[in-house]
Amino acid sequence: MSTAQHWGVHVKQTYRATVLAARPRGIPVPSDFAVVERPLVLPGPGQVLIQNLFVSLDAGFRHWMDEGSSDHILPEMPIGEPVMGLTLGRVVASKHPGFAEGDLLMARLAWEEYSLTDATDFFVKVPDEYDCPLSYHLGILGDTGMSAYFGMTDIALPQAGETVLVSAAGGAVGSIAGQVAKIYGARTVGIVSGAAKCQQIIEQFGYDAAIDRTGDVPQQLAATCPDGVDVYFDNVSGPLLELVLNNIAVGARIVLCGAVATYSASTPLPGPSNLFNLVTNQASMEGFMTHLQHDRYPEARTQLLAWAAEGRLRNAEYLMEGIENAGLAFCHLFEGRNLGKTIVRLAE
Amino acid sequence: MSTAQHWGVHVKQTYRATVLAARPRGIPVPSDFAVVERPLVLPGPGQVLIQNLFVSLDAGFRHWMDEGSSDHILPEMPIGEPVMGLTLGRVVASKHPGFAEGDLLMARLAWEEYSLTDATDFFVKVPDEYDCPLSYHLGILGDTGMSAYFGMTDIALPQAGETVLVSAAGGAVGSIAGQVAKIYGARTVGIVSGAAKCQQIIEQFGYDAAIDRTGDVPQQLAATCPDGVDVYFDNVSGPLLELVLNNIAVGARIVLCGAVATYSASTPLPGPSNLFNLVTNQASMEGFMTHLQHDRYPEARTQLLAWAAEGRLRNAEYLMEGIENAGLAFCHLFEGRNLGKTIVRLAE
Repeated sequence: MSTAQHWGVHVKQTYRATVLAARPRGIPVPSDFAVVERPLVLPGPGQVLIQNLFVSLDAGFRHWMDEGSSDHILPEMPIGEPVMGLTLGRVVASKHPGFAEGDLLMARLAWEEYSLTDATDFFVKVPDEYDCPLSYHLGILGDTGMSAYFGMTDIALPQAGETVLVSAAGGAVGSIAGQVAKIYGARTVGIVSGAAKCQQIIEQFGYDAAIDRTGDVPQQLAATCPDGVDVYFDNVSGPLLELVLNNIAVGARIVLCGAVATYSASTPLPGPSNLFNLVTNQASMEGFMTHLQHDRYPEARTQLLAWAAEGRLRNAEYLMEGIENAGLAFCHLFEGRNLGKTIVRLAE
Repeated sequence: MSTAQHWGVHVKQTYRATVLAARPRGIPVPSDFAVVERPLVLPGPGQVLIQNLFVSLDAGFRHWMDEGSSDHILPEMPIGEPVMGLTLGRVVASKHPGFAEGDLLMARLAWEEYSLTDATDFFVKVPDEYDCPLSYHLGILGDTGMSAYFGMTDIALPQAGETVLVSAAGGAVGSIAGQVAKIYGARTVGIVSGAAKCQQIIEQFGYDAAIDRTGDVPQQLAATCPDGVDVYFDNVSGPLLELVLNNIAVGARIVLCGAVATYSASTPLPGPSNLFNLVTNQASMEGFMTHLQHDRYPEARTQLLAWAAEGRLRNAEYLMEGIENAGLAFCHLFEGRNLGKTIVRLAE
């Protein structure tokens, strides 16, 4: 990277990107990623050049690192190309009628300092009516917050006094989901890995109890959810889902939000063998894709920010600096190292 | 059985019952059951003696034939005792304040010609306001019909033009579920075993297409549901559910009604490895227990009987005669031999 000045003062010649160096085998490792330097190209007609300020790290993108993973959502990521991901950036040059220099955008772009794009899809202007740090738009005001909010308020519908269990309870979505359930008057129990993290989620996100996945989960489930689980907000799937299904209460709602346990599996993991517990407990399991609720983001953002202002909701961030750390930050997600939303900051 | 006369004219000395002779290993076989003769005992205070006219055969009861199967619904069936099941019978002697001689009752009793009981649970008087054969109360007006009706109208909510897929499509619940979906304007596709049965369900229950489980199911799913499955009414579970999950449409609803594929498994079958398709398709999976909708049975019965009267709904029965055939009829369920509701008639 040659300079750090504002576009138009010194024209940068190159930028750095983190590319997919190898397809991860199972859990991603830092050597699956490499930093490359690329020439910066000015926008042509219909194009826009974006300086990415933040990269959002999301475990769900692991899926498209696999060969043959193209689906109706995204194509398979090519080896040697910048890793696809969600970014928040500023338009620094535009020949696109819809965008002007200075616009702040969230987009599905890539792990790179600058992106040249025709902006055909996944582009959202950062709303300017909220008084908060910019990175909140990747946390409580972003897809993460929206997933937690809509998953909890539209599907889980926690009632006062119910027991709400959250997996990956300290993660980007889980930490918000747990806090929202608590605001709705539920008892919240979080599942994380390790005694230290159990303590952290109780202190930082107000969970009433925590379950350590590295311990005896059935015993802890029984102890922390003696009347059964009314809501399971599942970010993990895999064998943990089967254990929880053995503990659901009548009328339980299982919200399928993420499946981090399965993203790195080289062959599909078997599903829970006890799905029939949904029948005997008249329970439901529902998946959802937050971005299709886009019309209702303003309502959700206003509510979440109001709770944050009242001190009832924390926007926690696990922040790393520099594009050279994007791969590492992504790997940390799968080790459960993060508390809150994992973000890499590329520029001020 | 000594006489067939009405109680009070000739007092019978004995009755026959089908007992559990051995715990089935996997799919039940006729030798798991045995007919015994037992002395008939008159009711004591608080008791009622019921002559069972029909036994309803339901695959779900297979579960409680296993050792250690006691749960919050029913206890494990003891070896040597009459097999638990649903019956329709007439009170022939009563010392119970709630029941009089001649009352027609549906109950969770056993595969036996007479039942002496204190009638503490699961007792429902056969409603007398419906003009139909008595056995309809085990079919479209019974739990079978109620499961199909509420599963389809409360959970599946089929819309005109949607594709509704039904497994065990010729069975007691499936045959009604498919017909109800058709009345709601859906395209219906049924899954059964064998080409002959494919033809039968199209002719008798109006399915638009049929899938033969003994053939190439993925190929047939793609061919008969080119726009994906909007509703899957699942009576089978197991590997078939996984195949269907690969073909669901956005917004699909999966109704978990039964799981005949799992009832005979000696160890739990793994669940579907592709539950994440619920997330990407924003789909739901919901289980239900019909008997908890009991307040709404009259509404459902009136509607189903009206459709039957209009010739839009067939109450199909797979009828066998005599308590000595109860075990065989039960085994036929697992071979998929039945078309419609499997019933054993014990008396006129």
